Amino acid sequence: MNIRESVRNMKTVSPVLAASSAEVRNEALIKIAEALAAHAEEIFAANRKDLAAADEKGIAPAVKKRLLYSEGKMQDSVAGLRQLASLPDPLGKVTLDRELDEGLRLTRVTCPIGVIGVIFEARPDALVQISSLCLKSGNCAVLKGGKETAETNRVLFEVIYRAAVAAGLPEGCLLLAEQHSEIDELLTCDKEVDLLIPRGSNAFVRYIMDHTKIPVMGHADGICHIFVDKDADQDKAIRVIIDAKTQYTAACNAVETILVDRAIAGEFLPKLAAAFEAAGIKMRGTSEVSEITPCEVMGEEDFATEYLDLIASVKLVDGVAEAVRHINYFGSHHTDSVMTENEETAAYFTQMVDSAGVYVNVSTRFADGFRYGFGAEVGISTGKIHARGPVGLEGLVTYKYRLTGDGHIVGDYASGRRTFHHRDL
Amino acid sequence: MNIRESVRNMKTVSPVLAASSAEVRNEALIKIAEALAAHAEEIFAANRKDLAAADEKGIAPAVKKRLLYSEGKMQDSVAGLRQLASLPDPLGKVTLDRELDEGLRLTRVTCPIGVIGVIFEARPDALVQISSLCLKSGNCAVLKGGKETAETNRVLFEVIYRAAVAAGLPEGCLLLAEQHSEIDELLTCDKEVDLLIPRGSNAFVRYIMDHTKIPVMGHADGICHIFVDKDADQDKAIRVIIDAKTQYTAACNAVETILVDRAIAGEFLPKLAAAFEAAGIKMRGTSEVSEITPCEVMGEEDFATEYLDLIASVKLVDGVAEAVRHINYFGSHHTDSVMTENEETAAYFTQMVDSAGVYVNVSTRFADGFRYGFGAEVGISTGKIHARGPVGLEGLVTYKYRLTGDGHIVGDYASGRRTFHHRDL
Repeated sequence: MNIRESVRNMKTVSPVLAASSAEVRNEALIKIAEALAAHAEEIFAANRKDLAAADEKGIAPAVKKRLLYSEGKMQDSVAGLRQLASLPDPLGKVTLDRELDEGLRLTRVTCPIGVIGVIFEARPDALVQISSLCLKSGNCAVLKGGKETAETNRVLFEVIYRAAVAAGLPEGCLLLAEQHSEIDELLTCDKEVDLLIPRGSNAFVRYIMDHTKIPVMGHADGICHIFVDKDADQDKAIRVIIDAKTQYTAACNAVETILVDRAIAGEFLPKLAAAFEAAGIKMRGTSEVSEITPCEVMGEEDFATEYLDLIASVKLVDGVAEAVRHINYFGSHHTDSVMTENEETAAYFTQMVDSAGVYVNVSTRFADGFRYGFGAEVGISTGKIHARGPVGLEGLVTYKYRLTGDGHIVGDYASGRRTFHHRDL
Repeated sequence: MNIRESVRNMKTVSPVLAASSAEVRNEALIKIAEALAAHAEEIFAANRKDLAAADEKGIAPAVKKRLLYSEGKMQDSVAGLRQLASLPDPLGKVTLDRELDEGLRLTRVTCPIGVIGVIFEARPDALVQISSLCLKSGNCAVLKGGKETAETNRVLFEVIYRAAVAAGLPEGCLLLAEQHSEIDELLTCDKEVDLLIPRGSNAFVRYIMDHTKIPVMGHADGICHIFVDKDADQDKAIRVIIDAKTQYTAACNAVETILVDRAIAGEFLPKLAAAFEAAGIKMRGTSEVSEITPCEVMGEEDFATEYLDLIASVKLVDGVAEAVRHINYFGSHHTDSVMTENEETAAYFTQMVDSAGVYVNVSTRFADGFRYGFGAEVGISTGKIHARGPVGLEGLVTYKYRLTGDGHIVGDYASGRRTFHHRDL
């Protein structure tokens, strides 16, 4: 079966999965956890093949670390699955219950989105997380992982899928796409696929967004800012900035631009420069910044650049209002933080900055589903439609309106014979 | 200013409008209501010009009725504005409040989407409804109405906009686009416009969806079904079908296809045919249907056709399961109804049909924001992302995550020096 036929079939499976009970879905998660442990050797053997191939290609150690599916990572996967099974069911929640008129009752009930395509980087633990989030939320999923872990993905998928079906979930509820060419085919299945979640490089996500009519959730850029206000605790600011830049430099929630209140530039910039040097961060500043502390002079295009490297741009601004304008103009609406001890300034910043995460006195690196307590995430959305920020179970459901009556017709209300009373129950 | 410059300016106005208090936004709605009444003569005079131009073009009486902005319609507008002002504020609602760790507090707060473009049919009352829903929800809006009411739109917009600004809302929060060419320009403003809501013909909505990277909310097709189960009260079914087809034939929630349980075809079809004849509805049936009751024989393409006319297609199915399969395959996921006195059948239907509205024993024509008690609607969404069904205030908001701490860094959690406790407050 090609992808189109598979997702067409998946579309008919989708209402069956949506109708499965929470018990069966949770049981499937437990069975998957058990199956992972039972097939550990098989999985690790496949992963060793992927790692050997990576060695042959001479992949960087930092990247190779992501490809590794170790005993420890499997333990995390198993723990994650058990935690997910214990979370409340996101489906069937009644979010509106209203009597429109006598005998005419409207309810709004949460339900799965349907068929979701997730395209993710070469990280075996991501496959486990994404498939389990989709099953818990009753969504069918097409999974396409990075090719560098193709062997591991294939074994993991088989183990997960077989356990899910054995637990009573319908056949065809999950699908593994293995060829890169299948992505382009998937992009054209807008009648069958309800949502795409691409993860990966800026260019890749943008390619997906530009080549499909299917709604896309995720983010291309992660241009995050920290604004150091004149009322900041400067040592605290340095500590937070260094964490936000170095704790995981290649992450989308790492900081790229530091905005500094002009009023404290003379005092703060030399401290920042010293901390940057100690942490191995290269500073790129405006010419004004370079006059206060030595650094490479940058152009305006730097403000729109996600470095994903130990580089940060630095600019002076006149207070929080200018900082907000800069962030709303150059930012990617991901996560931005203000360092200030002034509550009014903090309130202004969090109100006016138009981003998924608006932070006060903390590192931008906190933008993450696990840290937010969502169990896991399928991605982080910088869009404002549907879900914003880290997307967990809640972002994977929609709702439908149920209306029950006894032969009620609109004509009676249009003519005035009957009137709505709209009583919430 | 051209559209691009205007929406670029609007993008900077948007956080200011978002920060306005509920008091100011409600006051603006009251002032708009007062201004409409105060400028009634001016508005009616403009409307008379539009009606005269329509007469010259020989527009059909049914269409002309929509162009008319009468005393009665203005009273409805004024009442609607006052009702909207009295509704609770959709902004600033805290939907999650969680302590991640000591001193590290995460809140999720509702906020406006930002800048919304609404393109709507020639109906003056729609302009009032849409602009007021956007202002109540703190959204800037670009409004483009049908050209047949251009004169009325211009006066209405001026009255509304001036009253809103006089009440304290920021200048530039609303914009009227008057040229059709401006729509194409608007479609390219994906950096500035957060959401498009097109209303109008199938072909027009599809054109919008196919020519922009901006998220689009709405519906192209409205192919609604009624399934008459073997356990239906047949007289009730006839009454509901006739209402769903004739009460407003050109509406998206009018029924197009009637599915009849094969078990009752011999008894039900002649009754349906008689009712159709009495109501002036033309029946198109499968060859099987035509053998039971005389009717025009249809092709499969009819099932994918929105007639918007006094025509309905009729097909026999073997019970609710086949009805569901037909609806999920041919339907537009708008609104579908089952006629049955069997609760199990009703439960199966509402669970398995993948539509925004799943109805039991009522007319599909109830799918409407006013009838649902939302005050009004900006449109009806057949998409599953963000908002589904009639879209009122709730569909016009998103949220942001606020995180406040005291120099918290991710490094401390990654190293195990600190751990999250995720306590909901």
